[in-house]
Amino acid sequence: MKAVVLLSGGLDSATVLAIARAEGYECHCLSMDYGQRHHAELAAAARVARALGAHEHRVVKLDLAAFGGSALTDQNIAVPTAGGTAGIPVTYVPARNTILLSLALAWAEVLAARHIYFGANAVDYSGYPDCRPEYLRAFEALANLATKAAVEGAKLTLHAPLIDLPKADIIRRGAALGVDYALTVSCYQAQPDGAACGKCDSCRIRKAGFAAAGIADPTRYA
Amino acid sequence: MKAVVLLSGGLDSATVLAIARAEGYECHCLSMDYGQRHHAELAAAARVARALGAHEHRVVKLDLAAFGGSALTDQNIAVPTAGGTAGIPVTYVPARNTILLSLALAWAEVLAARHIYFGANAVDYSGYPDCRPEYLRAFEALANLATKAAVEGAKLTLHAPLIDLPKADIIRRGAALGVDYALTVSCYQAQPDGAACGKCDSCRIRKAGFAAAGIADPTRYA
Repeated sequence: MKAVVLLSGGLDSATVLAIARAEGYECHCLSMDYGQRHHAELAAAARVARALGAHEHRVVKLDLAAFGGSALTDQNIAVPTAGGTAGIPVTYVPARNTILLSLALAWAEVLAARHIYFGANAVDYSGYPDCRPEYLRAFEALANLATKAAVEGAKLTLHAPLIDLPKADIIRRGAALGVDYALTVSCYQAQPDGAACGKCDSCRIRKAGFAAAGIADPTRYA
Repeated sequence: MKAVVLLSGGLDSATVLAIARAEGYECHCLSMDYGQRHHAELAAAARVARALGAHEHRVVKLDLAAFGGSALTDQNIAVPTAGGTAGIPVTYVPARNTILLSLALAWAEVLAARHIYFGANAVDYSGYPDCRPEYLRAFEALANLATKAAVEGAKLTLHAPLIDLPKADIIRRGAALGVDYALTVSCYQAQPDGAACGKCDSCRIRKAGFAAAGIADPTRYA
């Protein structure tokens, strides 16, 4: 059975790909080049797709920087390194997950795939509105009204297997499935070669996850 | 008040822009360059935005042709000219409206706009799943869970003022608001200069609309 897997090149989506593979899916991986600062993620996504036996990997280019509004795409907004910020972080990219899921839906329809795998997580990213379970349910409802396949009765399922897992549990799950986390890049301001800053929110959450999981952190820090 | 208006360069979205302007909105028009065959539409969108006093017009480039699956983006699928085909036409672009609305949502969030105007029509495009009222309601529900603004309590409204209007009524409405339909391009296989084939589904619906409205058809046919 075919599945579209949203693959960012980070730790979470690599784990999701491993889960989808373990569940027997033929995995069609999709990454979006949205003008993100941490472009090394895309190279990581290609490595991860190969290592985990994905059927194919495609990158769709979309210039979200044209809209601005996020530290991840707007060069005028600094990536925070202090941590502990309240509310929705400036690294939130407007409507990014809605756009990503829409692209996955389009490709799923062309492939006649009935499954989308997405690494949304409501624990570490509790400040992101589009990582919440109720948001994902609303997207699944939309998807089942949006397409030719849906009109013809083929139900689409949106899988978010990490939604309520703490980072340490995600890492344990992936490690058990053979994910090589050295291939992944999480850092919001990664070097072109993928080396991590070790300071941004994403690096801190990742580092703490390996520590809590009791698994050696294979991340290369700059 | 600000609104994001999805503007294709066709007859319907030009009418929607005129309606949004008449309702007093500062209109931020968005077009998507999705690898469509009828590229003259984008030039038309720019003309229409200027003529109707839009605040600005942006084009976001996204290569949907990478996915294939539609006569409008896949050079291997012929655009039908016979008419009267049953079911969902091959000119349907997979999940296109979901992608378009997602982009509008992203921009609306950056602009702090609470209104999106969209020219979906359930009469002429009854075969398109993503032109139905229940689909639009589902998107609005999603939008109100998806964004930082929504989490902070700002309701987003999706306006689809043409949803149940026959083409003749759309044309009458636009004409009354001063839309110059000579600026618009509807043809699925328009010439680079915008001249219409007069044979595709879109041309036939448009031509019949002017006839039914009793308004002279200003379309340039090739």
